[in-house]
Amino acid sequence: MEGELRPMDAEQLREYGHQMVDFIADYYKTIENFPVLSQVEPGYLHKLLPDSAPNQPEALQNVLDDVRVKILPGVTHWQSPNYFAYYPSNSSVAGFLGEMLSAGINMIGFSWITSPAATELEMIVLDWLGKMLKLPEEFLSSGQGGGVIQGTASEAVLVVLLAARDKVLTRVGKDSLKKLVVYGSDQTHSALQKACQIAGVHLDNCRLLKTDSSKNYALSPDILCDAISQDMSNGLIPFFLCATVGTTSSATVDPLLALGKIAKKYGMWFHVDAAYAGSACICPEYRCYIDGVEEADSFNMNAHKWFLTNFDCSALWVKDRNALIQSLSTNPEFLKNKASQANMVVDYKDWQIPLGRRFRSLKLWMVLRLYGVANLQSYIRNHINLAKYFEGLVAGDSRFEVVAPRLFSLVCFRLLPPDNDENHGNKLNHDLLDAANSTGKIFISHTVLSGKYILRFAVGAPLTEERHVTAAWKVLQDEASALLGSL
Amino acid sequence: MEGELRPMDAEQLREYGHQMVDFIADYYKTIENFPVLSQVEPGYLHKLLPDSAPNQPEALQNVLDDVRVKILPGVTHWQSPNYFAYYPSNSSVAGFLGEMLSAGINMIGFSWITSPAATELEMIVLDWLGKMLKLPEEFLSSGQGGGVIQGTASEAVLVVLLAARDKVLTRVGKDSLKKLVVYGSDQTHSALQKACQIAGVHLDNCRLLKTDSSKNYALSPDILCDAISQDMSNGLIPFFLCATVGTTSSATVDPLLALGKIAKKYGMWFHVDAAYAGSACICPEYRCYIDGVEEADSFNMNAHKWFLTNFDCSALWVKDRNALIQSLSTNPEFLKNKASQANMVVDYKDWQIPLGRRFRSLKLWMVLRLYGVANLQSYIRNHINLAKYFEGLVAGDSRFEVVAPRLFSLVCFRLLPPDNDENHGNKLNHDLLDAANSTGKIFISHTVLSGKYILRFAVGAPLTEERHVTAAWKVLQDEASALLGSL
Repeated sequence: MEGELRPMDAEQLREYGHQMVDFIADYYKTIENFPVLSQVEPGYLHKLLPDSAPNQPEALQNVLDDVRVKILPGVTHWQSPNYFAYYPSNSSVAGFLGEMLSAGINMIGFSWITSPAATELEMIVLDWLGKMLKLPEEFLSSGQGGGVIQGTASEAVLVVLLAARDKVLTRVGKDSLKKLVVYGSDQTHSALQKACQIAGVHLDNCRLLKTDSSKNYALSPDILCDAISQDMSNGLIPFFLCATVGTTSSATVDPLLALGKIAKKYGMWFHVDAAYAGSACICPEYRCYIDGVEEADSFNMNAHKWFLTNFDCSALWVKDRNALIQSLSTNPEFLKNKASQANMVVDYKDWQIPLGRRFRSLKLWMVLRLYGVANLQSYIRNHINLAKYFEGLVAGDSRFEVVAPRLFSLVCFRLLPPDNDENHGNKLNHDLLDAANSTGKIFISHTVLSGKYILRFAVGAPLTEERHVTAAWKVLQDEASALLGSL
Repeated sequence: MEGELRPMDAEQLREYGHQMVDFIADYYKTIENFPVLSQVEPGYLHKLLPDSAPNQPEALQNVLDDVRVKILPGVTHWQSPNYFAYYPSNSSVAGFLGEMLSAGINMIGFSWITSPAATELEMIVLDWLGKMLKLPEEFLSSGQGGGVIQGTASEAVLVVLLAARDKVLTRVGKDSLKKLVVYGSDQTHSALQKACQIAGVHLDNCRLLKTDSSKNYALSPDILCDAISQDMSNGLIPFFLCATVGTTSSATVDPLLALGKIAKKYGMWFHVDAAYAGSACICPEYRCYIDGVEEADSFNMNAHKWFLTNFDCSALWVKDRNALIQSLSTNPEFLKNKASQANMVVDYKDWQIPLGRRFRSLKLWMVLRLYGVANLQSYIRNHINLAKYFEGLVAGDSRFEVVAPRLFSLVCFRLLPPDNDENHGNKLNHDLLDAANSTGKIFISHTVLSGKYILRFAVGAPLTEERHVTAAWKVLQDEASALLGSL
């Protein structure tokens, strides 16, 4: 065999590729047979696989058998219709085809020249998506701004934080890094704090302002103003504000317009994280939730969450692309080329952390074309209706309460402590989560709001239908009865 | 159609998936018919696609027709056997299958619980690969260290730089950030400088030490020692050294053992970037090039370059995983779970920049199993032999010279200036690059060494055979003759 390896034989790709398509199609046909949340113990796989790589090739069939017998039991099935945890991570036929094509072409699109189509298609589909969201013109590629696909919302907030940091440091001097202050709320995703850690912004200067139930856990403009005033009187420099549309815990929407005006007043970069809920804003009736985005310097939504585009595909738009480029560009000799040197093209390497990048726009393009805007809107509406339906089920059982207003497809709820003892209530809901997830029939996750342990039911898997929501509620009711009965 | 979208119908996935497999197999069958380097003009695609997304769904056939007619002409074909630019980016049947399966499962593996198999398979295959490279035990998952798949070498150097930064700042106080000094050579990849920019390390303190032809552009331990002494006498704090095995310009190898001892003496983090050449070190006869890696704190090689694993798959090993976790962990309530809280598992979210992560270990596992170690070694040797063959062709034509010693599969060469005028020589080689790439028959890239414009011929595409190297040389000779003839 040695010396005869033909690792990219077109006919072998065809034969094996067809086998893999069937394997994956069969997986989706039987996906409801698996426990949604994997029930394996830590270290399970180590016992099932050898300690070193084989010296000689193995047959595809053996590997696929191992996937079936050893890997799939260790998978938590995010695509299961009974998956209601965290936020969704949509796969779809179109998204899957886009991933296949991207893997098939397997080019590395750091500069325009390394595959002009990759850069240009990305600019075009992000303009398309920006128009669907009715983003202000300044976010489109025809002006000074434009869209870019990042891997995740974490990278999106990091790159704009770096752009904002360097912009202000250019003005006030780089030794002032320790004076820079970032603002968000205690509901802002932990990605903001991580971005601060990475960028060297002192965590003492990362203000995660307190929210409460009176404002539905949204960031209060008054509290923000107070914090800014106090920081400025202490000689600190406010430079970055992150607002959220659809917070991770309860899908709250921060008041963009009011917050944006404050950011502008103090010369701060205003970033809007709509990672989850941004998708809903393609429907006219939900567009209001990003009213005020015109005040933002950057806006982010994850097409890989609730928009049928396989992970990863996090869409980021900025009004001033040069701010990103100032922070993130490098220009080594070995990457120089006519088009870049003449400044005729976009080189996305200068808009992101890594150098290399995949052809991710293909999958978003396929989703938009194979489904069309009207279908995508109805897909979103269907999930929101299913969440409303679940909300009604919870409200109809007096042992439970809905905890925060439901705006999108997430319902926050909990089992009421029968004795009004909140500590007991927290343990009870923690146990209910555990019990429900241990059945393997559903997977939900949790959060804590105002000290209360809350269950989260996020509708959004592509295969979820009303019957799955009904069945999930039955699991939760049954497990609740068992827990309450054993008290 | 509204309300009837079934975006993850298993039978549609099967039908469309088979069509896409055939499309991609046909692409590989005809890949030599395309110009290797795309010949389109900036903005070409904008003229071919509509300004907004369609409201109604389109047929897959229409989209595939557009891929053929509008996208592929804008692709630079990294998988073409006539691709010799930059460094390779290997696709393979196994790597492609792994990408398909990963996209099919489409789980987000930030924590162990979100798919235990994803975390555990990654630990296992990186142990396999670490053993193939004969990395010291401390880099394996059984101890305090372990391997992790990053997206790119840029992210690998960034995360270890952050770990090193925070380790030293914990000791000397965070206000000392401006005193921290990083060392590499003027041949170190620009990713080091970018990592410094991101991490807030002052670029004035990023020492890219001069190399020259006398040491084959390797970093000199003496020069390093001098730089460190001078910095320390100026009150600065050396904290990070990056050595390279296979530099981007000329595939030079820095002297790891000597450099590592210096790093240890001064308490610096020692990172080894073997992004390209690391793959060769699975062959016993090339393993010597990473001798000294036992002195390193971290080691990186890109399986997506020359190891048949589709992009992205950058393997990073560290001896102290806690250093990464200290810098990069977050622990928000909504991600808490029993296994993580009990510290029983690895949560890779704390080893990387993003939160979400794909099931990338699948493709590396498939490559290792479907090909086996012996085949992979012979794959590497074959490319190195083809590079030797090309080197011989260059040496046989007195109009050309080989510029730097060839260690792996990269040949640096140039057309000699006929009048010994170096400025003329630079223009001549620049024109030769342009002329050769404009034929569409080959794609090569360039660098500059000691002020000389140098052509790089990197063998490493999975389909490249001797006949392609022969033909490429013919293109270069012909274009050189035309250029010299017109003088």
